[in-house]
Amino acid sequence: MPPSISAPPVIILVETQMGENIGMCARAMLNCGLDQLRLVRPRDGWPNEKARATAAGANIVLDNAKVYEHIDEAIGDCQRVLAATARQRNLRIPGLNLREAVREIVDATPPPKTAILFGPEASGLDNDTLARADRLIHFPTNPDFPSLNLAQAVLLLSWEWRQSSPLESATIVNPDLPATREETNAYLARIEQALDNSQFFLTPERKPNIIRSLRTFVTRSNASHKELRMLHGVLTALIKN
Amino acid sequence: MPPSISAPPVIILVETQMGENIGMCARAMLNCGLDQLRLVRPRDGWPNEKARATAAGANIVLDNAKVYEHIDEAIGDCQRVLAATARQRNLRIPGLNLREAVREIVDATPPPKTAILFGPEASGLDNDTLARADRLIHFPTNPDFPSLNLAQAVLLLSWEWRQSSPLESATIVNPDLPATREETNAYLARIEQALDNSQFFLTPERKPNIIRSLRTFVTRSNASHKELRMLHGVLTALIKN
Repeated sequence: MPPSISAPPVIILVETQMGENIGMCARAMLNCGLDQLRLVRPRDGWPNEKARATAAGANIVLDNAKVYEHIDEAIGDCQRVLAATARQRNLRIPGLNLREAVREIVDATPPPKTAILFGPEASGLDNDTLARADRLIHFPTNPDFPSLNLAQAVLLLSWEWRQSSPLESATIVNPDLPATREETNAYLARIEQALDNSQFFLTPERKPNIIRSLRTFVTRSNASHKELRMLHGVLTALIKN
Repeated sequence: MPPSISAPPVIILVETQMGENIGMCARAMLNCGLDQLRLVRPRDGWPNEKARATAAGANIVLDNAKVYEHIDEAIGDCQRVLAATARQRNLRIPGLNLREAVREIVDATPPPKTAILFGPEASGLDNDTLARADRLIHFPTNPDFPSLNLAQAVLLLSWEWRQSSPLESATIVNPDLPATREETNAYLARIEQALDNSQFFLTPERKPNIIRSLRTFVTRSNASHKELRMLHGVLTALIKN
């Protein structure tokens, strides 16, 4: 019997350059039973006939793919965000091997709505996008020849997902829902506004780094809906001081 | 430290049609640290420039590939032979899922010299070749869209091989020093003072719960020394607003 997959993740391809690669990713996904694909600014537009040519019949994935202008819209309804990255980054985001990362999500109760981000073919995800992730996924390949192409990485992720069948039953209900990315972003936007109001950013160049650090910090903590309400209350109190 | 792979298997591609596919298999193998490739009657001859084009630099695998006229020569020095097959066959050869099949070999002592056979793109291995295998390897993909291409199958086999070796947890070490509890407490005390100043705690009973929630949130995020400095800066800006 095939493993039953509850709460399959959304695969998000960010600024993919070649339609062919999107098609091969769709095929790899459907081979492993994943069918939710989102695209952020695909270079050659969408729909894309070259994607269809390489999808080898995984048309349902392409037909249902959603396109977004900004990463925050693409992850807005997700509770956990993982990012595939090849390089060591100087970011305070926990890194996990692929199998561990999948295990962590699959074992979570209740299963969170999860997005997995994959960057452009040549450069991978930039730091601003990575700062939106709870976890960086590391693919433990051969250190002397480590580089997977996009469709290979998506295949391995999808495969590991399928192989890690979720635990039977054990539906432990956690009343405190994880915050969605939309809620987290709204909170960060409020802090940013407050900091603007108090001339915190002495020079404009400082701002992106500070905001990214704040985002990393809040995201890593994986705040619940209730905690975010509390943080909003604290912020309101501090501002009116 | 990368996992050590003892007795890496030989990958044998039987009557592969397209050179491009041989190249992509070589890449996938080397990505996972396998480098012994054997070819039985490749349709377009050998060497093959199209294979080099898709190998993405895995030239060492192609350069060392050996070519054979008959499968029996290709597997002559091997102690175990496994065959990848998509379809159920009417053969009395035990079938195992990919992960189980790899596990069985990796756990064997002493490690046997092992060959894994992959058939031509269109038809797969014929029954005569399968009859030489100790085990048939089944890839448990989506039953509604099961068919992997050759390079996908070789990647998954190579990947499972690499993962089945005892793995170090590759949790990425971050050079940024974690904050001490003393530093975290000092920060929380400052927020508490600021909230007191703004009459945030309408009733004294509310205070311990809120402070505890804040502490949980900040602690769980495992802030670094540097991040705490940033959070202090933010707090200062908000207070003076």
